[in-house]
Amino acid sequence: MNVTRNLKITLAYDGSEFHGWQIQPGLRTVQGTLADAINRLTGEEVLPQGSGRTDAGVHALAQVASVALESPIPESNLVTALNDLLPPSIRVTSVEAVDTHFHARHSASAKTYRYRIFRGDICPPFLARYVYHDPYPMNEEALIRGSQHVVGTHDFTSFAASDPDRSARIAGQQQDEETGDSQGITNIRTIHSSQWVRTGEELTYTVRGDGFLHHMVRNLVGTFLQVGKGALEMDDVARILEARDRRAAGPTAPACGLYLVSVEY
Amino acid sequence: MNVTRNLKITLAYDGSEFHGWQIQPGLRTVQGTLADAINRLTGEEVLPQGSGRTDAGVHALAQVASVALESPIPESNLVTALNDLLPPSIRVTSVEAVDTHFHARHSASAKTYRYRIFRGDICPPFLARYVYHDPYPMNEEALIRGSQHVVGTHDFTSFAASDPDRSARIAGQQQDEETGDSQGITNIRTIHSSQWVRTGEELTYTVRGDGFLHHMVRNLVGTFLQVGKGALEMDDVARILEARDRRAAGPTAPACGLYLVSVEY
Repeated sequence: MNVTRNLKITLAYDGSEFHGWQIQPGLRTVQGTLADAINRLTGEEVLPQGSGRTDAGVHALAQVASVALESPIPESNLVTALNDLLPPSIRVTSVEAVDTHFHARHSASAKTYRYRIFRGDICPPFLARYVYHDPYPMNEEALIRGSQHVVGTHDFTSFAASDPDRSARIAGQQQDEETGDSQGITNIRTIHSSQWVRTGEELTYTVRGDGFLHHMVRNLVGTFLQVGKGALEMDDVARILEARDRRAAGPTAPACGLYLVSVEY
Repeated sequence: MNVTRNLKITLAYDGSEFHGWQIQPGLRTVQGTLADAINRLTGEEVLPQGSGRTDAGVHALAQVASVALESPIPESNLVTALNDLLPPSIRVTSVEAVDTHFHARHSASAKTYRYRIFRGDICPPFLARYVYHDPYPMNEEALIRGSQHVVGTHDFTSFAASDPDRSARIAGQQQDEETGDSQGITNIRTIHSSQWVRTGEELTYTVRGDGFLHHMVRNLVGTFLQVGKGALEMDDVARILEARDRRAAGPTAPACGLYLVSVEY
C-alpha cells in the first residue's frame, strides 16, 4: 500500500491565458491544467485545492495549492517534472511535503494582492496583458489617501461581487473567494495594509489582509480610481463601507492588472 | 487636390501575436494590421514599408515604417488615432513628416537588435513570450568572447537563412532582410558592435550593424550558444565566417528572444 503525502505546491501563472483558476468543463483553467499535468505524471486523478479562486485574466506570482499524492517522486523532482508537462504560462516554483492537516484554502492566514496601473500615454505592448492602462488625469494624492480608509476590520459587503443569481439564492450573502461557499459567511474581513506607490510610469496598489471577498480587490481599486478622478471624495470610502451595498462603490477594475502575490500560513 | 505627406511611423510590437511583419493573405501580420488601421482612419489604401521584415514571434521596440498619406490629420493626432484602432500588442510611438525621399528600408544606415536569454531554472510565466529560456550549463565567458569575432566587415553567408527554394533559384545568393530582393546582393555586412551582458538571471546580446541578412542575428546567437556549450571553440566563429556555408554555423535561436531595438537614418 502506498503512503499518501500531502503536498503544498506554489505556482505562478499568466492569467491572460486561462479562464481563471477553477476547473470548468471544456475551458482552459489553471486548476484543470495542473490536475492534468499531475495525472499525466503520476496516473493519479486528483483535484489540487487552491488558496482561492482567481478570475479569468488575473495573474499569480505565488498561488498555493494543496493535494494528496501517492506517487513517491521526490518533491524537488516534482517541480521539474511538472514544469516539463505544464505550459510556460504556468510555473511550479516549489513543492513541499506538509502536515496532513494542511489545506491551501482553510489553512491560509493572510493574503497579499497587487494591482498595477500604467499611467503613461502609450502602454508598451509587452505590458498590455499585465497592467491596466489608465493614462487619464488623476489626483493620485487623493487616491493614495482614500485607500487608507479600508485598513482595519470592516464589513466589506459594498466591495463584494454582486452576483444576481447567487444573491437571490442566499439572501444578500456574498460568495467568499476563499471558500466558494456562501452559507453562513460574514463579509467581515481585516485589512492589514493598503498602499499605493508610484514608480516611474506605474501606479501600484498592494493590499494585505486575512481574506478577500470575490472581486473585492478589483472593486476597491475601481472605487479608489473614482476618488482619483474626483467622482468620489476621499471620505466617501468610509461612507461606502458603512453602506454595505455594492451599488455604493465604484466599478470593478479590469482583471489584467491584478496579481495574487502571496499566501501566508 | 490633396497634398501627400511622407510619414515616418515608429512602432513597438509584441511579435508573439503576429505572423511576422510582412503582409500575408489570411494571416495576422504587423504590416497588414497597420495598413488596416490606416485604412479605417483615412480611407486610404496604402502599404507601409518597414525598415525590414521581422519573423513570426520576433518583437520590436522601435520598428520604423514609411508611408505616403493624403490625409491632413496632424502627426501627433495620428499617434493617438492609430493607437485607438490598433490592438494593444502594437503601439505607434511617434509619427513624423519626413522628406519625400525618405524610405524606411532604403534610407536606413544602421540597425540594432537584441536577444534575451533567461538563465534561471524557472522562467517566470510573464517572460515566457519575451525571452529564450536556456537554464543549462554554459561557459558564458567563452560565449562572450566568441561574439567578438564578428565585429567588422565580413561575408555573413554562413549566418544567413538557408532557403532551399530561393537558394536554388538564385544560385547561392541569400535573401536580404532589408530588401526582400536577392538579385545582385552580396552577403557582406559590417557589424559595429557585438556584446553580451549578464544582468541578474538574463544574458542579453546586443548587436549593431549596417544591415542584417535574414535570420542572421538568430544564427549568430545559435552559434555563440554552441561556443558557450562547448560544441564549438571560440575561434571556430572566425572559421565559420570564412566557410561562407550555412552548414558550418550553429542552429537558428528561437524567435521569441529577438527584438528589433532601433533603426538609424
